[in-house]
Amino acid sequence: MKKNIKFNIIVATTLDGKIAKNHNHFSDWTSKEDKIFLHKMLDKSDCIIVGNNTYKTSIKPLSKRNCIVFTKSVKIIKQASTNCLYINPNNIDITELLKAKKYKNIDILGGTEVFSYFLGKNLIDEIYLTIEPIIFGTGLPLFQADLNQNLCYKLKSIKKLNKKGSILLNYIK
Amino acid sequence: MKKNIKFNIIVATTLDGKIAKNHNHFSDWTSKEDKIFLHKMLDKSDCIIVGNNTYKTSIKPLSKRNCIVFTKSVKIIKQASTNCLYINPNNIDITELLKAKKYKNIDILGGTEVFSYFLGKNLIDEIYLTIEPIIFGTGLPLFQADLNQNLCYKLKSIKKLNKKGSILLNYIK
Repeated sequence: MKKNIKFNIIVATTLDGKIAKNHNHFSDWTSKEDKIFLHKMLDKSDCIIVGNNTYKTSIKPLSKRNCIVFTKSVKIIKQASTNCLYINPNNIDITELLKAKKYKNIDILGGTEVFSYFLGKNLIDEIYLTIEPIIFGTGLPLFQADLNQNLCYKLKSIKKLNKKGSILLNYIK
Repeated sequence: MKKNIKFNIIVATTLDGKIAKNHNHFSDWTSKEDKIFLHKMLDKSDCIIVGNNTYKTSIKPLSKRNCIVFTKSVKIIKQASTNCLYINPNNIDITELLKAKKYKNIDILGGTEVFSYFLGKNLIDEIYLTIEPIIFGTGLPLFQADLNQNLCYKLKSIKKLNKKGSILLNYIK
């Protein structure tokens, strides 16, 4: 029962589908236009969900917003600061928690493990996928999840963000 | 020295950047519109380069065209049929071979290993990337290659191929 809660994935990938080179890789390779879009989206969201690595690499822009950080370092739940809640998603029902907090519009920012968690439960309502015209060759994929079946989405819009050709794709379930 | 030879990658991926679920996965998940585009491109090409797995899963549409199949099953080179040449890319210079055959417009169709071979040598002039609005969750990536540096391309065009939202991105070096 996730009704009334909307889960959005907001992510930038290379044209070869990588979200980062490795777990400590800060997203300094994404375009200015993508960052502007991201911050507009975050301003509209009630809460951001990230993994602990993503939180650590982006702590400055995230620390002033309502954040839920997925981590195995806590058993169930721990209030880390006024805005930041650490939870262990294996031991707590995230949708029940969001309901209790009356959070409705949720932006999921990664990384792979967190994206895969929501994909595996088929909870993703909308995907905002920026594709930067760059190739890493290797790195972290968007998802790493065994699914029972392929998931089909619909492309709602395409937007070219700049001259070099960063594009923003919006998919809905 | 690769002058006068143009290497194009033509590939379809899921929105999570996978080219197939596994090595034996035939591309039955790509849209009709992508297949039409692919065959138009192949009609214009002098030669197709594929790996042995890709060749085996697509032998019917490929067998009537000039094909070079990358494989470790031959030592250097072997004429497998009138149109099909098996070569071991570790033991022969592919650009010299193409020059000798006067092939100029080359379409590389995969899989991951063959794409990565050309990426690693920075030989890819143009990429035709179809993104289907589907998610596999796991599977084979477009590339698996350690690069010395990120490679930047430019987006030349975006085309929406159908209603559900398959898109064709054309990148140039």
